[in-house]
Amino acid sequence: MRSIAIGLLGAGNVGCGVVQLLRDNHDAIARRVGASIQIKRVLLRSPGTRRPIDVPAEWKTTDPADILADPEIRVVVEVMGGLEPARQYVLEAIAAGKHVVSANKALLGTFGKELFAAAAQRGVSLHFEASVAGGIPILRSLREGLASDRIEAVSGIVNGTCNFVLDTMTRMGASFDAALAEAQVRGLAEADPALDISGVDAAQKLTLLALVAFGLRVDPQRIPTEGITRITAFDIEAARTLGCVIKSIAAARVDHGRLLARVHPALVPMHNVLGGVHGTYNAVLVESRALGRSLYYGRGAGMMPTGTAVVADLVEVCRAIIGLGDRGTGVDELAAIVDVTPASLDDERHENYVRVTVPNVPGVLGQVANCLGAHGVSIKRVNQDPRGPGLPVEMVVVTESVTDAELRAALAEIDGLPTTLAPVLRLRLLEADPLD
Amino acid sequence: MRSIAIGLLGAGNVGCGVVQLLRDNHDAIARRVGASIQIKRVLLRSPGTRRPIDVPAEWKTTDPADILADPEIRVVVEVMGGLEPARQYVLEAIAAGKHVVSANKALLGTFGKELFAAAAQRGVSLHFEASVAGGIPILRSLREGLASDRIEAVSGIVNGTCNFVLDTMTRMGASFDAALAEAQVRGLAEADPALDISGVDAAQKLTLLALVAFGLRVDPQRIPTEGITRITAFDIEAARTLGCVIKSIAAARVDHGRLLARVHPALVPMHNVLGGVHGTYNAVLVESRALGRSLYYGRGAGMMPTGTAVVADLVEVCRAIIGLGDRGTGVDELAAIVDVTPASLDDERHENYVRVTVPNVPGVLGQVANCLGAHGVSIKRVNQDPRGPGLPVEMVVVTESVTDAELRAALAEIDGLPTTLAPVLRLRLLEADPLD
Repeated sequence: MRSIAIGLLGAGNVGCGVVQLLRDNHDAIARRVGASIQIKRVLLRSPGTRRPIDVPAEWKTTDPADILADPEIRVVVEVMGGLEPARQYVLEAIAAGKHVVSANKALLGTFGKELFAAAAQRGVSLHFEASVAGGIPILRSLREGLASDRIEAVSGIVNGTCNFVLDTMTRMGASFDAALAEAQVRGLAEADPALDISGVDAAQKLTLLALVAFGLRVDPQRIPTEGITRITAFDIEAARTLGCVIKSIAAARVDHGRLLARVHPALVPMHNVLGGVHGTYNAVLVESRALGRSLYYGRGAGMMPTGTAVVADLVEVCRAIIGLGDRGTGVDELAAIVDVTPASLDDERHENYVRVTVPNVPGVLGQVANCLGAHGVSIKRVNQDPRGPGLPVEMVVVTESVTDAELRAALAEIDGLPTTLAPVLRLRLLEADPLD
Repeated sequence: MRSIAIGLLGAGNVGCGVVQLLRDNHDAIARRVGASIQIKRVLLRSPGTRRPIDVPAEWKTTDPADILADPEIRVVVEVMGGLEPARQYVLEAIAAGKHVVSANKALLGTFGKELFAAAAQRGVSLHFEASVAGGIPILRSLREGLASDRIEAVSGIVNGTCNFVLDTMTRMGASFDAALAEAQVRGLAEADPALDISGVDAAQKLTLLALVAFGLRVDPQRIPTEGITRITAFDIEAARTLGCVIKSIAAARVDHGRLLARVHPALVPMHNVLGGVHGTYNAVLVESRALGRSLYYGRGAGMMPTGTAVVADLVEVCRAIIGLGDRGTGVDELAAIVDVTPASLDDERHENYVRVTVPNVPGVLGQVANCLGAHGVSIKRVNQDPRGPGLPVEMVVVTESVTDAELRAALAEIDGLPTTLAPVLRLRLLEADPLD
């Protein structure tokens, strides 16, 4: 049987998962590929570090050239994370005609344009299933399962840390800070969790979902993105009385050729399937013309789940090497990617949850209602529970369906009222059940 | 650009979906395949029949040899359904070195052994994504997304007619007969719905899921299979008071090398994601060693959803023709399939819902409880609502977790009691939330 030599850039959690899967399932993978996949080298920053599994000494190197300049190595697996030097190494690998499998959403989200162009020009594969929703084969399903369909929208829960924090607040009644601390204790959140809780990580993943779903590339920094840091235990409880849970949602769709994309927390009805996605699970809902709605649901992170996605890409790339020779798979799709700017969300319509902090005095509701009415925003429901004499009141307004532009104008006016004690919080309401 | 000629056997709903997708998305598909897929011939029983879309006259033929004996035709798409002559045509196509894409679960479930062996021997592809769960790319995800993982269990809702009937009973309070009639009015159930409501259709699909997930082939007739025909509005309501809905579940798993498989209605807690699968939707839950649990959810039937699955297979087969030449994809996996007999379910443990029809007289509960206790079955909860003096009572017993063998022995004894007025109905209870 032929063998294909590969090199790993990095051996953290995901890299160790890859090593273990290639070892444990060697024979099944070889049967599927038609060749034995052999790790030849693993680039390490500190070869002495303790790792989840043992990396044989003869694989270890600290010199990237041992991988990038070795003509025997046909595929480079980038699992080191971060932007540099990952970008430089991937470009060098591509230039050397090596296929690349990456698990690095930050790298691909940020430098995707340059990297995909380089891979397309050189005719090599650049696969990145593991970069979105961990082990869920969502990119593969978009590319292959729905190959004959036109995908119109993708949305879902793609950041496990945010979902864990919000889920813990919902189920334990915890505060945001306590829930985040719990995520850190469990190793689910980074020491600096800013990328997760700000929504930036989800925006990077949404860029990659949109890329594969629509062939359109958008700069993740241009995606309107709201984090979950302003969500309080009060909001969680208020959502519950509305039959909802709060989830961080990433959503993109194509409408008359325009790409609309956004990342934000939203009220999700408990009967919406996304409302039942707990802990660190991820779930992506796809809407396509022929198939309709479909959902892909599973572990979004972790050494072994993410490892399976990397190895699935490796299997595809290696099968192509056996079948097609040097030319990679998906090269024509990469070459056809179009760069776009996301369209304005001004005309999007939603029902909304609006929380206004006001003093416990008569007449305030009238003022808030007037601001909304002046911009054509109808009120569906209002609730204000006084917490005690002299204490401020959290007023919750649920609006009828209204455009973003109208709502924003009304909220700016409410923010300007002398009785508004803190910036207004606005959360969109999702529909009850998309799969019905 | 190269072109690849294909022939369709049949042009019913699914066939017309394939024709429409290949026409509407021709360019995108050609880009992905690296060749233009051209329909050359379509075998029809009655060329004059009205169809959902127009089939050009020059494609139409009533002579199978126009497809099976045409050396230009490289791929045969079998969407005619039924066992014969579909089996014969597929074998002829394989013998002629043509790749085959089929949407026919009855054919593959029943004659899979013969057909897969023939394809493996001849080195051609035999793909059947559309035969299970319509447009959901579940077989592809099992084969490719989880290529490096070991799949331990698959379970879910794979018959849209059963799910529609049970969902309509649940949501409308309809009787079984009324719900089934509604399914027939909507074109969801065949004039003879026996294959669906008996569970036979689900058993055939389970055979194919197990084949791809585990590489094990089991005769669908040997899978313990219960239909939904005994479920009444009373059971639906009793389940609701237990926080459950009733769903028809197909489940298979490998345990110490033994294949366990079953199809039956079960009580599914509302918080279990399968409990929220409505209407004709399908959902398949996969448990694998590295990824853990993942779920695939979407439209399980219909012209366009099923069409997308057929075309996804076609794309894969045609890509392989361009890349690999004559040898098909997945041939080695087909050749490695092992025939097995499903293991006994005697030792499986479940909580259970047991409905016993008894006269409204004192002492009956004691007798029933004695039968259960004699076989080590503990009772968690009992309910009996008298419907009126002199009328029989439906007694509902919820058991603690117990083996199938113990429960069956106890139920046989209850069935033998002079006070038992109708055969006992037993439904398993599923766990609350598999994705938690």
